[in-house]
Amino acid sequence: MFRQLGVIGCGLMGGSFALALKRGGLVKRVVGYSKSPSTVDRAKRLGVIDESADSALLAVSGSDIVLISVPVAATEGTLKTIRHGIEPGALVMDVGSTKRDVVDAARRVLKERLVSFVPAHPIAGKEVAGVEHADALLYQNRQVILTPLSQTDPALVQKATDVWAAVGSQVLRMTPENHDTAFAAVSHLPHLLAFAYFNAVMAQPAGREFLSLAGPGFRDFTRIAASEPAVWRDILASNREEVIKQLARLRHALDAFEHVMRSGNQEALEDLIRSASEGRGNWQMNARPGSAR
Amino acid sequence: MFRQLGVIGCGLMGGSFALALKRGGLVKRVVGYSKSPSTVDRAKRLGVIDESADSALLAVSGSDIVLISVPVAATEGTLKTIRHGIEPGALVMDVGSTKRDVVDAARRVLKERLVSFVPAHPIAGKEVAGVEHADALLYQNRQVILTPLSQTDPALVQKATDVWAAVGSQVLRMTPENHDTAFAAVSHLPHLLAFAYFNAVMAQPAGREFLSLAGPGFRDFTRIAASEPAVWRDILASNREEVIKQLARLRHALDAFEHVMRSGNQEALEDLIRSASEGRGNWQMNARPGSAR
Repeated sequence: MFRQLGVIGCGLMGGSFALALKRGGLVKRVVGYSKSPSTVDRAKRLGVIDESADSALLAVSGSDIVLISVPVAATEGTLKTIRHGIEPGALVMDVGSTKRDVVDAARRVLKERLVSFVPAHPIAGKEVAGVEHADALLYQNRQVILTPLSQTDPALVQKATDVWAAVGSQVLRMTPENHDTAFAAVSHLPHLLAFAYFNAVMAQPAGREFLSLAGPGFRDFTRIAASEPAVWRDILASNREEVIKQLARLRHALDAFEHVMRSGNQEALEDLIRSASEGRGNWQMNARPGSAR
Repeated sequence: MFRQLGVIGCGLMGGSFALALKRGGLVKRVVGYSKSPSTVDRAKRLGVIDESADSALLAVSGSDIVLISVPVAATEGTLKTIRHGIEPGALVMDVGSTKRDVVDAARRVLKERLVSFVPAHPIAGKEVAGVEHADALLYQNRQVILTPLSQTDPALVQKATDVWAAVGSQVLRMTPENHDTAFAAVSHLPHLLAFAYFNAVMAQPAGREFLSLAGPGFRDFTRIAASEPAVWRDILASNREEVIKQLARLRHALDAFEHVMRSGNQEALEDLIRSASEGRGNWQMNARPGSAR
């Protein structure tokens, strides 16, 4: 049970975490700060936070658990601002989709408070942003990756593990490097593809007409193309090397398809499709390798 | 009201059409044929068809409405087989996802029976195939494209329009050429991308580990990668010129992303994402251009 949660960035992710802790009876009081005063007002009116703070530092002071849920590029500035307010023994987490940059920023600015920081990435979200979409069940049956530093207090890593487990998440630990490589493959590249694909369709003279004909396959394939531009700009920029590596692999796979289509090799074309189709048919969300399928 | 529906290919599409006609009281009797006898048996046991036929020709004889729902590459052979069984005034449709090849095949083999043929493409489906997934509501609130030939009897085009409307579909007419261009963009390319993307992830040494970390965005983005290999081999092969043109456009859009990521131009990167995000945010399935949104 925590005494006070300080949420910095009262959007979808931060708001959902506050609601989840309240729902589980895991916190007595939630204090929130957002750059935009109207966001904080909405969060308070919706009962997502109990009190609004006038600064990030004030949201942190007196809190024994802090969640930073700002765009990745704003993390370093936020850590700088709150550093002197972090109480001894407090647990400080972020929710960024990239982890190397966050860990580097923390190393640069947190100094003696580095022990408090447990970088976190919950694999959850919606294609709509904002506190009005906050959802106490957003993290239920989702994975959360923690990438603790060697300096992080092990007791706080345990606390972080416990609080995410208490809101229904499955908690994994990885190095920041492995995290960023894996998520370039399974999250960042699909977003890039969905954005680029949507732009490619719209750029055509008959693009609008085409879009009016699209069906349920298109709907699901492009759902992530509606994601928040500022958030995804930061993610793609901060993990660009890994994303570009994954893009090269994708181009290679596209070349293979184009080659068999041009050569008219029906059998090879079917083999390429079958490989994907069987792979996807056997895939299940949240199935750990080695666990029963 | 039809006297007898002949279904050639008792899978998801054909089975769902049979169930939809039965549900709407639009047909007295359904006769089905499939290449595999076990499929026909299952279709009969599930009540999807009333009688099984020993050949495609026998399924057509005595039918005043015929639905050909076989992989696109098998359409020409099927038309050849049934030609002499098509009764005067009978409506014959297919459900193929490509239309130029189907129209060309019909021109080659149907001869004096060409008047009966109304090529159709219902924009509906599931990523699971087979008659056990047939669904009387599969075509409800979906679009159906008809690409009639100049020789097609206008009264039969009207009958086709009426029967699809009666099962809840919105009916549009296009030329086969425009159809194939549009669906290369909004359906065939996304499938190709989903297949290639899934293969690219799996081809990596840590691919399996990566897949275990993937979340709901990945799940929706790759849903169509599980589609039926033989069906999609035929679609990609038969519409390969248009698909390859769309792929070139996509590569161009990917180049634009890679360029701004490499150059570190954050503003241009956000603009590219915003264009897709706003476009997808405004998109609605089945919204005709010019209609209220």
